[in-house]
Amino acid sequence: MHRLSPIDSAFLLVEQRHMPLHVGGLILFRPPADAAPDFASQLANRLRESRRVAPPFDRRPHTRFGFGFWDSEQEFDLAQHFVHLALPRPGRIRELLAMVSRVHSAHLDRAYPLWRMYLIEGLEDGRIAAYFKIHHAVVDGVAALRLFMKSMSPDREQSKTMPAPWEIQTRRSDATLAVPAPAVVGPMGLLASLARNAVKATPTFVRQLRHTWDDYRAHHPYLATSVQAPRCILNQSVTASRRFAAQSYPTARMRAVAQKIDGTLNDVALAMCGGALRRYLADLGALPDESLVAIVPVSVRQDDGTTGNEIAFALANLGTNVADPVERLRLVKGCMDYNKARFREMSPAQLQAYSVAQLLPGALTWLLGLDPKHFVANLVISHVPGPRQPMYWQGCELDGMYPASVVVDTMALNITLISRHDAVDFGLIACRRTLPSVQRLLDHLETALVELEHALFGTPARAAPRRPEKSRPRRMHRSSRPAAPL
Amino acid sequence: MHRLSPIDSAFLLVEQRHMPLHVGGLILFRPPADAAPDFASQLANRLRESRRVAPPFDRRPHTRFGFGFWDSEQEFDLAQHFVHLALPRPGRIRELLAMVSRVHSAHLDRAYPLWRMYLIEGLEDGRIAAYFKIHHAVVDGVAALRLFMKSMSPDREQSKTMPAPWEIQTRRSDATLAVPAPAVVGPMGLLASLARNAVKATPTFVRQLRHTWDDYRAHHPYLATSVQAPRCILNQSVTASRRFAAQSYPTARMRAVAQKIDGTLNDVALAMCGGALRRYLADLGALPDESLVAIVPVSVRQDDGTTGNEIAFALANLGTNVADPVERLRLVKGCMDYNKARFREMSPAQLQAYSVAQLLPGALTWLLGLDPKHFVANLVISHVPGPRQPMYWQGCELDGMYPASVVVDTMALNITLISRHDAVDFGLIACRRTLPSVQRLLDHLETALVELEHALFGTPARAAPRRPEKSRPRRMHRSSRPAAPL
Repeated sequence: MHRLSPIDSAFLLVEQRHMPLHVGGLILFRPPADAAPDFASQLANRLRESRRVAPPFDRRPHTRFGFGFWDSEQEFDLAQHFVHLALPRPGRIRELLAMVSRVHSAHLDRAYPLWRMYLIEGLEDGRIAAYFKIHHAVVDGVAALRLFMKSMSPDREQSKTMPAPWEIQTRRSDATLAVPAPAVVGPMGLLASLARNAVKATPTFVRQLRHTWDDYRAHHPYLATSVQAPRCILNQSVTASRRFAAQSYPTARMRAVAQKIDGTLNDVALAMCGGALRRYLADLGALPDESLVAIVPVSVRQDDGTTGNEIAFALANLGTNVADPVERLRLVKGCMDYNKARFREMSPAQLQAYSVAQLLPGALTWLLGLDPKHFVANLVISHVPGPRQPMYWQGCELDGMYPASVVVDTMALNITLISRHDAVDFGLIACRRTLPSVQRLLDHLETALVELEHALFGTPARAAPRRPEKSRPRRMHRSSRPAAPL
Repeated sequence: MHRLSPIDSAFLLVEQRHMPLHVGGLILFRPPADAAPDFASQLANRLRESRRVAPPFDRRPHTRFGFGFWDSEQEFDLAQHFVHLALPRPGRIRELLAMVSRVHSAHLDRAYPLWRMYLIEGLEDGRIAAYFKIHHAVVDGVAALRLFMKSMSPDREQSKTMPAPWEIQTRRSDATLAVPAPAVVGPMGLLASLARNAVKATPTFVRQLRHTWDDYRAHHPYLATSVQAPRCILNQSVTASRRFAAQSYPTARMRAVAQKIDGTLNDVALAMCGGALRRYLADLGALPDESLVAIVPVSVRQDDGTTGNEIAFALANLGTNVADPVERLRLVKGCMDYNKARFREMSPAQLQAYSVAQLLPGALTWLLGLDPKHFVANLVISHVPGPRQPMYWQGCELDGMYPASVVVDTMALNITLISRHDAVDFGLIACRRTLPSVQRLLDHLETALVELEHALFGTPARAAPRRPEKSRPRRMHRSSRPAAPL
């Protein structure tokens, strides 16, 4: 039994009926070519034979004298945590995403350790899927990914002999996995982080704030602030229902665009998000005149591989008010380059304090109701580096890992992407009711990439988008009747 | 938009994270002999074409000025309410019950009308299943059954042309269905009922209370009171996870036993519950010396077929302290006969007031903490008369309807049974963590029936139990490790 940290406690405290605070992920696998027809059932049976459970998978929250503690579960009930599911026919990706949307919407029972894994069979293309959810009070999104990755191997044969994900003891350091940056924290994470880091502030930090103030007064073109994001339909209260959308885009295509403008893959990903959001909001007649602003988590983790919420935040202008795709990309790149140059001047502790401090003007403006037309930021977009080589789990090749993060009141959409050696996997999670047909963003992301390729290389890209679904999704037409789930 | 009644409001108000207050039911159907392999998919597609939604399926709760109202949903989103699922292989009843246990554990999203229907394919025996859940604030368990029954017909061909369940307008009266008694209300229902009925109390009512007091002082053998139920493992706080267990027993066998002792099918059902609970608790070393007491809802509905919570409650001694099965049955029958004789002397309004008044001594004792060893009652056992002839839905023959009711803190188990022409369908819902391996009660119910047959007819019953599962379930051995779900 050990005490919950204030941040972990906060995730349990602020969780509400309509706002579960677990993180999740959908992972696709390609079974071996010689797999039996009942491969998934056999795999489920093998995993069910598991008799051990390692921390943090055995952690159950427990309140005593008003404080939160982690108990170690004594009567571990695997059937509560590992669930075998099947898709109804025809077993398309749209049925899978609808299923993940539903299970991601449901709360975890606090009487048990706060995680559940679903093994899903029945995809028409023969792939199998795993959806994993774990409470943010236990680990953040990246740590969850890390945990699951530990049960994978770059070697197919070796992967067959590896234990179930929940059997693997978590060490503080595991350099071989090299999944560096943590992902998302909620507003409570910010506040706790502020309290922790305020004491670490130094004259350097104050100098940095003055620097930002000078740039703000000089209207620096690449400085994004927390008082400029136009409040839009993304910034509403949410309901308890989620919609999950996911798609992969070839790393090579995104990298080619990045190289052409001397930028990074992350710059291209953010510009794609900007382009897609511009189109999505315009279709709904809800595109603000000013550009959307995203909070972009940046890792300040030292190379010792320790876990924890060692995060800083950059603010990125997404250029949703810019019609030209290349101009939008250059704006995003300029913004991120500005952030990087500023961040290089700070130590990790200074950077964390600075990250929170830059959000304060927007947060105060919002709390005091001074400017109802703006909000701290419009959404969080996280980019998590994934494995750099083919990986295997229980003999199956990893074929996509799509994060399903947290949606909260005032931020009804979250985009998290994982970049792997050959594909960048986008996971979008949104409030089903607040944001209609959010799956359209997948097409808009592709369109945004094609537009960049067309403008930079003169020809539309030849490569078809790599989507979980084999066939192109049918274009959803606008109607007063909400579309079916994906 | 109309105002929620105080009882309906109460169901929304007292609902908690670990205690959802929706009622549900699992319904099994046998498709026609010439059904195509994709019969379920085709049915799902047909139901998805539904374009209408009738009250109460369009009702969404809404709070204004601190009062609760029902709004009519303007943007009805069928994909949120109708879900097509498939069982993983091998598609046994245990996989189905595990799935229903999980979906029954999850809350309904209050931003939408408070119901959901799952169509489940993949049972190895070719049957299909529907699981339906609707919030207790909308309708009680019996009204929910009524609603679903309206989309069925005694004629197979006619049933194929009937609309989806949610399209059928509810009328205040529908005598043809003849599903008389409402089922379960929670403690808030009791209190609201008390307030409503106190004003209806008359001298007759006071005379009845004096009658009960005299019988109590005279130690009447068939008077069950609300101060005698031994507090046991059934009367604990619950977690958010449920376990659902279901089984059918032939009506003919139960009726034969009833006739032998000049009792009713309901007497036999209660005695079976008593026998099964005795064995279940004894196996756990938790059998109290005193008999368990059940709250048994009794319909006081007039023949005009109006809906609503027109319920009274009888208290029944289950004879769990009696080893002999026939002696236990005679005790239960005596208790129910005593109740009926008393109830006949009262008008419906008097009966409702009396029902609540008889629970008051136990409720006050509990609230004041005067007797921690006893509780108002140990569980609720409801018996709902079902259809008296074969019924069809979308061309499929009805083959079992198992209620999944509400579990609350202090009552971790609910048993509701539906008696049809050829089978009595028991639905047991329990807190998964508080009551280990509650599915064992299904075997114990069968054993209790066999014991009665053996004692009354001299021979063990020849007929095999009619169970959703074809093969006998493997006997679960006791171990420190909780058993897999069903």
